Amino acid sequence: MRIVRDPAELAVTERPVGFVPTMGAFHEGHLELMRASARENARTVVSLFVNPTQFAPHEDLSKYPRNEARDAELAEAAGADVLFAPSVDTIYPRHTTEVRVSGVSERFEGAIRPTHFAGVATVVLKLFNMVRPDRAYFGLKDLQQCAVVKRMVEDLNVPVELRFLETVREQDGLAMSSRNVYLSPDERERAPRLHDVLVQLARSLREDPSVLAEELVPAATAALNRHGFEVQYLALVDPESMEPRSKFHSSFRWIVAARLGNIRLIDNVPA
Amino acid sequence: MRIVRDPAELAVTERPVGFVPTMGAFHEGHLELMRASARENARTVVSLFVNPTQFAPHEDLSKYPRNEARDAELAEAAGADVLFAPSVDTIYPRHTTEVRVSGVSERFEGAIRPTHFAGVATVVLKLFNMVRPDRAYFGLKDLQQCAVVKRMVEDLNVPVELRFLETVREQDGLAMSSRNVYLSPDERERAPRLHDVLVQLARSLREDPSVLAEELVPAATAALNRHGFEVQYLALVDPESMEPRSKFHSSFRWIVAARLGNIRLIDNVPA
Repeated sequence: MRIVRDPAELAVTERPVGFVPTMGAFHEGHLELMRASARENARTVVSLFVNPTQFAPHEDLSKYPRNEARDAELAEAAGADVLFAPSVDTIYPRHTTEVRVSGVSERFEGAIRPTHFAGVATVVLKLFNMVRPDRAYFGLKDLQQCAVVKRMVEDLNVPVELRFLETVREQDGLAMSSRNVYLSPDERERAPRLHDVLVQLARSLREDPSVLAEELVPAATAALNRHGFEVQYLALVDPESMEPRSKFHSSFRWIVAARLGNIRLIDNVPA
Repeated sequence: MRIVRDPAELAVTERPVGFVPTMGAFHEGHLELMRASARENARTVVSLFVNPTQFAPHEDLSKYPRNEARDAELAEAAGADVLFAPSVDTIYPRHTTEVRVSGVSERFEGAIRPTHFAGVATVVLKLFNMVRPDRAYFGLKDLQQCAVVKRMVEDLNVPVELRFLETVREQDGLAMSSRNVYLSPDERERAPRLHDVLVQLARSLREDPSVLAEELVPAATAALNRHGFEVQYLALVDPESMEPRSKFHSSFRWIVAARLGNIRLIDNVPA
């Protein structure tokens, strides 16, 4: 496993190249992306870069979990060939160009974190231009991020094939996340309710096509509140547009964001 | 000479590929870019696309001169291998992602045409991603455009080498421009004064290093006004930042924009 700091040393000659952009603190979700890339490509590049421009000043940039040595071992075991771990100065000698995706980036996470997706779109495009992958792998846990990256790639004609993989979950249904380590034992016990409620919403809408998605939301929100969550949004959406929808379609997803104590959790499931 | 409408048919296997993005209405300035590309690359792709997103509603998009058949002949004679002439719908099936370059895009042309450079940066990046050139060629006539594209390429790590070529001029010094055909005979006769004034400013500053650039501007502006120009800006700038400068440096340029009747002319010369 080669650890690279300088993008000039990234040149990979054997193709196809698969690419997994990450912020480190690897869990099974990341490792599944790497394994998929290793299966489908001659070489797999994993980037490890905690991107400051996608954090707002009050967010958890400084306490984001970091352990590069452990991450490098895990990535190698998952089949990665190169770990690209640049410094902030390497990625941003300055920051004067920004990629903005309108529409798909504006609701939900975009409404709560107004500068987040410009930061994501810009750094992902920069990383694509440095790594020049044939395929890139993203986890559906960050559904709106997937939607923004897909739109950016289509709109800017970026020559890369995107692969979105289903969320990897703990036994009790909690979506894997680098931030789960910050849950208290009590919060950790309650956290799987988020997924339970999504699964129940999906079942309810599928079983009664006459009901509208928004009619199911108040009771589901109340249930989460009873479990100690503070719900920020809960909706059925078309993941192409990230617009709310009322009626079932097999391509739609139920999405949720909620605070549990000091931790913000997001999740989504197929409709 | 192959004329291509569909970016999927652009795939060029012989490298290096040189690329000349244009809005057509070719003159010697364009043809010099194509000849330079043909000398330095195995294949040369010229794009012909009058990009609507870089025109403001009141600007001359609809009357921009167009003659594809003539342009194709000229490009072929200049050594181009492919003319990429897509439709507006091909380039913009929708327009939801925008590349914004701050700083370098904000003064001068950016102040007069506030949406112009986002349109330029976005379409140039799209064209780069479609053509995937090794080198791209731009004329220094549009100095600030060169500065914005250079900054965008550096900031987004776009894998292309940029070449900026000196402005090609008529015998009397008028910078070649597709819009020159709209000058009346009287305006055409007065137009070269714009270049004369820039040359005189450059000489004055070089000859007397104690003088400041901004001290020379009022008399030069008055001279242009006497010739019937309405000066929009006239300044010495650092082309890396497009910031005004007071003292001579060999990398700086004198820039000017002025209206002559209904036609807007821009020009620049080395300091």
